[in-house]
Amino acid sequence: MTILERLAGVVGARNALTGDDAQGYREDWTGAYAWEPLCVVKPASTAEVSEVIKIAHETGTPVVPLGGQTGLTGATEGQGAIMLSLERMNAIREIRGPARLAIVEAGVILTELHEAAEAMGLAFPLTFGARGSARIGGVLSTNAGGSNVVRYGNTRDLVLGLEAVLADGTVVDLMSELHKDNSGYNLKHLLIGAEGTLGVITAAVVKLVPRPRAFATAMVAVETLDDALDLLNRLQEASGGAVEAFEYMSPRYMAEYLARFPEARAPFEKPQEVTLLVELGAVAPRDAVPGDDGQVPMAALLEHELGALLEAGRLRDAVVAQNAAQRAEMWARREAAAEVATRATMVNNDIALPLDKVSAFLDEMPGKLAALDPEALVLTVAHLGDGNLHYSVWPGNTDPGARDAIMEAVEEEVLRLGGSFSAEHGIGLTKLPSMRRRKDPAALAAMRAIKAALDPKGILNPGKLLPPEG
Amino acid sequence: MTILERLAGVVGARNALTGDDAQGYREDWTGAYAWEPLCVVKPASTAEVSEVIKIAHETGTPVVPLGGQTGLTGATEGQGAIMLSLERMNAIREIRGPARLAIVEAGVILTELHEAAEAMGLAFPLTFGARGSARIGGVLSTNAGGSNVVRYGNTRDLVLGLEAVLADGTVVDLMSELHKDNSGYNLKHLLIGAEGTLGVITAAVVKLVPRPRAFATAMVAVETLDDALDLLNRLQEASGGAVEAFEYMSPRYMAEYLARFPEARAPFEKPQEVTLLVELGAVAPRDAVPGDDGQVPMAALLEHELGALLEAGRLRDAVVAQNAAQRAEMWARREAAAEVATRATMVNNDIALPLDKVSAFLDEMPGKLAALDPEALVLTVAHLGDGNLHYSVWPGNTDPGARDAIMEAVEEEVLRLGGSFSAEHGIGLTKLPSMRRRKDPAALAAMRAIKAALDPKGILNPGKLLPPEG
Repeated sequence: MTILERLAGVVGARNALTGDDAQGYREDWTGAYAWEPLCVVKPASTAEVSEVIKIAHETGTPVVPLGGQTGLTGATEGQGAIMLSLERMNAIREIRGPARLAIVEAGVILTELHEAAEAMGLAFPLTFGARGSARIGGVLSTNAGGSNVVRYGNTRDLVLGLEAVLADGTVVDLMSELHKDNSGYNLKHLLIGAEGTLGVITAAVVKLVPRPRAFATAMVAVETLDDALDLLNRLQEASGGAVEAFEYMSPRYMAEYLARFPEARAPFEKPQEVTLLVELGAVAPRDAVPGDDGQVPMAALLEHELGALLEAGRLRDAVVAQNAAQRAEMWARREAAAEVATRATMVNNDIALPLDKVSAFLDEMPGKLAALDPEALVLTVAHLGDGNLHYSVWPGNTDPGARDAIMEAVEEEVLRLGGSFSAEHGIGLTKLPSMRRRKDPAALAAMRAIKAALDPKGILNPGKLLPPEG
Repeated sequence: MTILERLAGVVGARNALTGDDAQGYREDWTGAYAWEPLCVVKPASTAEVSEVIKIAHETGTPVVPLGGQTGLTGATEGQGAIMLSLERMNAIREIRGPARLAIVEAGVILTELHEAAEAMGLAFPLTFGARGSARIGGVLSTNAGGSNVVRYGNTRDLVLGLEAVLADGTVVDLMSELHKDNSGYNLKHLLIGAEGTLGVITAAVVKLVPRPRAFATAMVAVETLDDALDLLNRLQEASGGAVEAFEYMSPRYMAEYLARFPEARAPFEKPQEVTLLVELGAVAPRDAVPGDDGQVPMAALLEHELGALLEAGRLRDAVVAQNAAQRAEMWARREAAAEVATRATMVNNDIALPLDKVSAFLDEMPGKLAALDPEALVLTVAHLGDGNLHYSVWPGNTDPGARDAIMEAVEEEVLRLGGSFSAEHGIGLTKLPSMRRRKDPAALAAMRAIKAALDPKGILNPGKLLPPEG
C-alpha cells in the first residue's frame, strides 16, 4: 500500500485529499507562503490522529497540523507534508458552569466557544480579530494573545489541561481540570505555544469566567506614554482590576485611519499625541445595573476618575461612550488596524516591551529610523496594557536589504530595553532570522535538545519555530 | 586538587562547608529524611553557581539546590551530593512600581519580598505557612500554592521571567519582564515546578499587584460542599472576583481543633457539616474606605450577600469579622491545621480535585476507608476555592502496609474523579510511588526524555520527581 492509501484507510477516502481537492491548503492567508502538500487528512478522533502520526513516523513524512489557518508567520507551510487538519474534531464535549470550565476538541472555532459559554451566562474571554475562523488547537499552539490579555492573560493562562499526540503517535493525556497540580514537568505549558513542533494538540480543558454585564468604554488623550501607564494603574486600582482593554493609537495611525475612512469621526477636536481606548468590564451587578439616575456604576466610576485627572491637568481630553453605538465607534477605530496599516512592503513588528519601557522605545526609534530611511513612516497601535506594540513601518526604500536593516534596528532597540521580537504572533517561518539573531543561545540550545528528545525524526512541523543550527 | 578544594576555590573556603560545619543541611524539617552530603557550598553569584555546576558536571557529582528547606516531600535529600545553598544570593535587585514588578535573587525569603512590595504600596500575593523561611528559588522550583491561589494563581502565574543554570553550567537568561512573549518553547514554565532537576533557578522577575486596602472576612456554615461551590461563585460574581481565600474545615477537624486549644471559641453555636472561612480583598478605595456608617463597603457587600442567602435558607449560619482581632481569630482556626492534623503515623494526602467533584470524593471515601481500616479517622482541611484538599488520615492500623493501602485507595478515588495525587507540595521522594502508579505513562516517558536531554549525566537533584524506569 502507498502512504496515501494507508492514510485514506485511517480517515476514510473522502477525508484524505490530494490534487485539486487540496485547494485551500496550499497557501497561508497573508499570501506570503505557498506550497504543494503531499495530501490533506481530516481525522475525526484522537485515535485517528494517532494512527496518522504513526504512519508519518514510520515513513519519516512531515506532518503539519492545521487549525483555522489564520496565523501570521507561515507556521502552516507544508511542502511535501501531510497537512493534518483538525477541522472535523469540532465538538464542545462539555461545559460545566459550577466548575467554570469547558472541554473542547481542537477544531472548535473560537466564536463557537464564545457563544456556548455565553449561553451559560459565562465567557471565554480570549478574543482577537480572527476569532470567527481560528480554531482552539491553533489558538493553543500559538498561545494567542489579543485585546483582553491585560485582564485575563494569554491563552496559556486560560488552559487547565490538554491532550496531544506526540511524534511517535503516543497520546499524552493532560486533560486536567485542576487549579493546582504539581505532578512533574509542566508538559501543558511546553506544548502551548510550540506551534505543533512537539505534538499535535487534539483537545483542551479551558477556564470560563463570569461574563461582564456591562462595559464602560472611553477614548482618552494624554500627553505621554508614561502618563498612560499612570492612568492604567489608577484605573486598575479604582476599579479593583476591571480594566479589560487598554489600547494605544499613534497620531499617524489616527491620521491614516481618518484618511482611509472619510465618514469616520475623529475622537477629539484636535489630533492628540497619545490616543487611548480604555474599557472596564463590570462583572458584579452593583457595577453593572443602572442606578436611579440611569447610569451604570462602572461608567460613573470611569467618568469620575477621568474627570478628576482632567481637572488635575493629567489628561488632555476624554470621552466616555454613552451607548452601544458609541462604544462600537470607538472599537472600530482600533480594529481597523490590519486594514489601515498593512501594505505589501510593510516591515511588520509584533514586539513586546516592559510596561515602563514603551515610552523609551518610541522616543528612541524615530532617530534611528531616520538615519536608515528618511522617508520611512511608522503606524503604531498597541495593546498598551500588556506592553505589546504592533509597530508597522512603511519604508521609503522597499529593497529587501533596506527592510531587513529596519527590522534589525527595531530588534536591537527592543533587545536593549529587555523586550521581545515576538509578542503574540509567534515564530513560524517569518521570525526564524530574529530567533537566530536575538534569542539567548543557551535557551535556543535547550529548545533544540527538547525538540530532538521528543521528535527525534523531526517530522512534526519541520523547519518552524527553531532556526537550524550554525 | 580535590573536588572540595576546587569548590572552595570558587565560593571561598568559608562558604564551602563539610563535617560539623554542614550541620543543618543533613535532614529535612519533617524529620523523615536524613543524609550525609559531600559538602555544602554557598555561592554569591550566578557566575559562582555556574562554576560549581561545571565542576559537578565534569566530575559527575550530584548537585542538590537548596532554598529555605521548608519542603514537605524530601526534595532536598542529598546523600553524597554538593548541597548548593542559594542563601547568600538574597538581593532584591529592583522593584519598579509603575511596571508592577520585582527582580529578585533566588535566596530572597518570601516575607522579605512581601515587605519590600508593601513598602511600595503593592503586594506579592503568594503566601503560605512557611513564608518566613521559604526562599524564592525553592518557591519557584516547587511552584508553591497556598491560600490565595483562588485569586492570584500559583507561583508560576506570578512569574514573568527567570534565570537558571543548566546541568553543564550554562546560564540561561529568561529574565523577561514581559506580559506577552511568544519566542519559542516556554522554558520558564518547564523550570518552574521541576524541583531543581532540570536547572538551578538563580533569579526571577515576579509580578506585583495592588495591595488590598481592607479585607472582609467571615465564617460561614453550609449544608453541603455543592452549596459551598455555589456560594463561591455567587461571591465571585457579586464582588467582581475579589475572593482572596475560600477555605474549608471538616467537622472532625473543628472538633480536634477545639479539643487541642481549649481556650479557642467555636465559630458557631452548634457543630456544622461544612465550615468555611471566606475572605474578600478590597483593592479599590470605593470598596475599602469606610462610609458615613463606619462600615467598609466590601464588608457590607459580604454581609448583604450572606444575609440574603441565610434568608433564602441556603446557609446554616454566618459571622462576619467586625475587626482585626475577629479576623485573626478566624484565621487561627484554619492556620492551626499543621499542628492539629500532623501525627507521625498520619497518611498525608495533598490532593486536588475538579471544583465540582470535591463533594463526590468526600462522599465516597468514608465507605472505602471503613472497609480498609474501621478505626481510621480523617481530618480534612481544604483550599476549597482551588480544589486542593489536605486529606489527613489517622490510621487505626499503623503498619506500613496498611497505611500504603489507605494511600492507594485515596489515589484511586482521586484518579477516578480526574484529580491529582499532588496539588501543591510536589513529588520529591515522598510521592515517587504515586507518580509511578498514577501519572499518565506517555507523560512520564516525555518527562524522562526531557530530563535525559537537558541533564544527560543526571547530576541535578538525582532521584527526585521522576521514578526510575521499570
